[in-house]
Amino acid sequence: MINILDKESFLAQLKHQQAPNEQKEHIEQVAKDVIKHIRRDKDEALFYYIEKFDGKLEGDLKVSNEERQAAWDQIKPDVIDALKRAADNIRSFHQKQLKESRFMQHDKDIVSGQLYTPIENVGIYVPGGTACYPSSVLMNAIPAVLAGVTNVIMVTPERFGETINPILLVAADIAGVTDIYKVGGIQAIAGLSYGTESLPKVDKIVGPGNAYVAAAKSLVFGDVGIDMVAGPSEVAIIADETAQAKHIASDLIAQAEHDTLARAYLFTTSKELIDETTRALEKQLSVLPRVEIAEKALRDLGGLVYVASLDEAFELSNILAPEHLEIQVDQPLDYLRYIKHAGSVFLGHYTPESLGDYYAGPNHVLPTSGTAKFSSGLSVDDFVKKTTFLYYSKEALQLAKNDVVTIAREEQLDGHAEAVIKRFED
Amino acid sequence: MINILDKESFLAQLKHQQAPNEQKEHIEQVAKDVIKHIRRDKDEALFYYIEKFDGKLEGDLKVSNEERQAAWDQIKPDVIDALKRAADNIRSFHQKQLKESRFMQHDKDIVSGQLYTPIENVGIYVPGGTACYPSSVLMNAIPAVLAGVTNVIMVTPERFGETINPILLVAADIAGVTDIYKVGGIQAIAGLSYGTESLPKVDKIVGPGNAYVAAAKSLVFGDVGIDMVAGPSEVAIIADETAQAKHIASDLIAQAEHDTLARAYLFTTSKELIDETTRALEKQLSVLPRVEIAEKALRDLGGLVYVASLDEAFELSNILAPEHLEIQVDQPLDYLRYIKHAGSVFLGHYTPESLGDYYAGPNHVLPTSGTAKFSSGLSVDDFVKKTTFLYYSKEALQLAKNDVVTIAREEQLDGHAEAVIKRFED
Repeated sequence: MINILDKESFLAQLKHQQAPNEQKEHIEQVAKDVIKHIRRDKDEALFYYIEKFDGKLEGDLKVSNEERQAAWDQIKPDVIDALKRAADNIRSFHQKQLKESRFMQHDKDIVSGQLYTPIENVGIYVPGGTACYPSSVLMNAIPAVLAGVTNVIMVTPERFGETINPILLVAADIAGVTDIYKVGGIQAIAGLSYGTESLPKVDKIVGPGNAYVAAAKSLVFGDVGIDMVAGPSEVAIIADETAQAKHIASDLIAQAEHDTLARAYLFTTSKELIDETTRALEKQLSVLPRVEIAEKALRDLGGLVYVASLDEAFELSNILAPEHLEIQVDQPLDYLRYIKHAGSVFLGHYTPESLGDYYAGPNHVLPTSGTAKFSSGLSVDDFVKKTTFLYYSKEALQLAKNDVVTIAREEQLDGHAEAVIKRFED
Repeated sequence: MINILDKESFLAQLKHQQAPNEQKEHIEQVAKDVIKHIRRDKDEALFYYIEKFDGKLEGDLKVSNEERQAAWDQIKPDVIDALKRAADNIRSFHQKQLKESRFMQHDKDIVSGQLYTPIENVGIYVPGGTACYPSSVLMNAIPAVLAGVTNVIMVTPERFGETINPILLVAADIAGVTDIYKVGGIQAIAGLSYGTESLPKVDKIVGPGNAYVAAAKSLVFGDVGIDMVAGPSEVAIIADETAQAKHIASDLIAQAEHDTLARAYLFTTSKELIDETTRALEKQLSVLPRVEIAEKALRDLGGLVYVASLDEAFELSNILAPEHLEIQVDQPLDYLRYIKHAGSVFLGHYTPESLGDYYAGPNHVLPTSGTAKFSSGLSVDDFVKKTTFLYYSKEALQLAKNDVVTIAREEQLDGHAEAVIKRFED
């Protein structure tokens, strides 16, 4: 039901999964055509694709204040309170990521430093349809609001006459979203990137979507900023003999229920734990609503990997560079220093990934499919730009003059040299 | 010779320049084919394209220690000293960008925080051929080395039998580059992204190149990290009547000599300064070696823009979001607070852009073509990942339990709820 692996078979499976994806080309072509059309014909094309892919829009593209207000009456108070407490935790964690503009050097003759300025207009993509993730609204919008973004524009589709789930509108209010538009898919990304008569252009787009949304984000990258190209989600659990199989099984299942392409791995030094986890998985899956998705993901991908030592477990985990890493061992904080590459880490026996997915504070928009080797989860930094600045007095420039002229001439850029020389010709 | 504009004509010209670029599609197709081929056939394809685009390689792909050592004898001592002093300044500025792993919360029941870990393998693209920019080697490699990158892999082409300019090898040594390979263009980006028998795979690629290199970087983005998609370079100069026309003209020319697509703007409240700058441009261009490039850039793009006030100058500059912004006014530091979007800022009458391009410390790899609205210049941050971490005690999880379960069930992810519930079933 789930693969039992060792170091070698794990590495072989991983290599196989990194082969190029041929289907990607078709998706890219569709995205390219839609983007080109919307960039050229704006609203006309935007509404054409909304109708084609999601059904005819009832009412306005923009969610009205009345619609946003009415949503609150449809959500139970305990849900609202849970979302508000989650938002407080997320805000508190991300608040500490804010940075202040500062000087690197500050004396009479030389001043240098970095300004932090917010991006002005940000688009937040929120999936619609069967998936309904208020937590994603919080995770994407709260850091943007904290960073000082002026316009936080959320897009999420209505699907074939079904209006946007009111919990998304409530989450948007809690998070501080400025405006909401009823559009999803490639057409939302294209519209936000180039602007139409009805949908404002933004400077950066964040938030996860399906393969079409991911392809569209890749294609508009450069014309607007994007957060990352999100792939299927994954978890790696490193466990020693102090871990409990039923915890592990429940965390593997929580990962696998997302999506048939989700990957869930256990790395453990305990063969007994592998046996127990296999049994616990069977038992827990039997009562899971999304059992078919989770079973397929566990069967086709992921696995329970026996390792010779915790060192080896971290070696493999660092090769995988998992989006989520759980460390269910004795004295877990002591193992932070073994981590080279991971999106977000969950330490100890009572820190399930789902606690972080929803509630505790760290962001759940994280680098997937090994991209934690070169990228990071969403943070306030994604909504802030750094502008360096420099002031030299005439005296300071005089001291630097010869060196600058020397290097400029080596690069055969005489105009660069002259820009310094001219300041001393009188 | 250069356009004289006002607010309206400036905005109209800017809008015209943002239209989609049809030539881009052809370049993308070429890049896509080369990448696919190299990803599949590795060395065989890599060497095929090296020979095709740059001529047959003499000797090994990798620059040997002997070649690196021999380069030092070919560079004059004053050039070496100038590069070393520039490297010291760059190091000193970027050193202050280093961040420490830290806790957001740290008490008995809840621990959370952010780890900073370096990217392990970075590729640095350095253009070859007629362009020879040792300053780019320093600007790209020094932040990577400071960040703690293990392998800083530089690529730069030999072109038709001409070996790599020794100054690039010396700059690589000064900056701390690990290994150097003689390959450029799309083939370098493809090889670094997927690895071949002779060229190691890296996790991220930085450094500017031509349109083919930029297209290749866009295409591999996601499989590896990239810094940004660099376009033509630009400068905006904001000046009041205290500025000198010959300084302004020399800075506009230094920008324009890069490339016929470079854009150079002056925004000024002084009509007299516009007249004087026009005359100074003519005079200075007459003795410039790269006069043809600079004249074409100044004539076709950019302009001298008369504004009603410095407020209006900053308004237009913020719309342009220039890569480089010079503020040649009285009390320039007081105007930092007017800046919303810019790559790097040069303040006062004695801080020409070329001082920063080569020497003073801030990075010269900067967001171009308005992308300063959502991105930043290269910094140590580009070589570091942030991994969030979280620990909850059993007691802390107990307090969070109901909220997490409530939100998980709203999202119809029962497995997520069970992962918390299971920890309290005994």
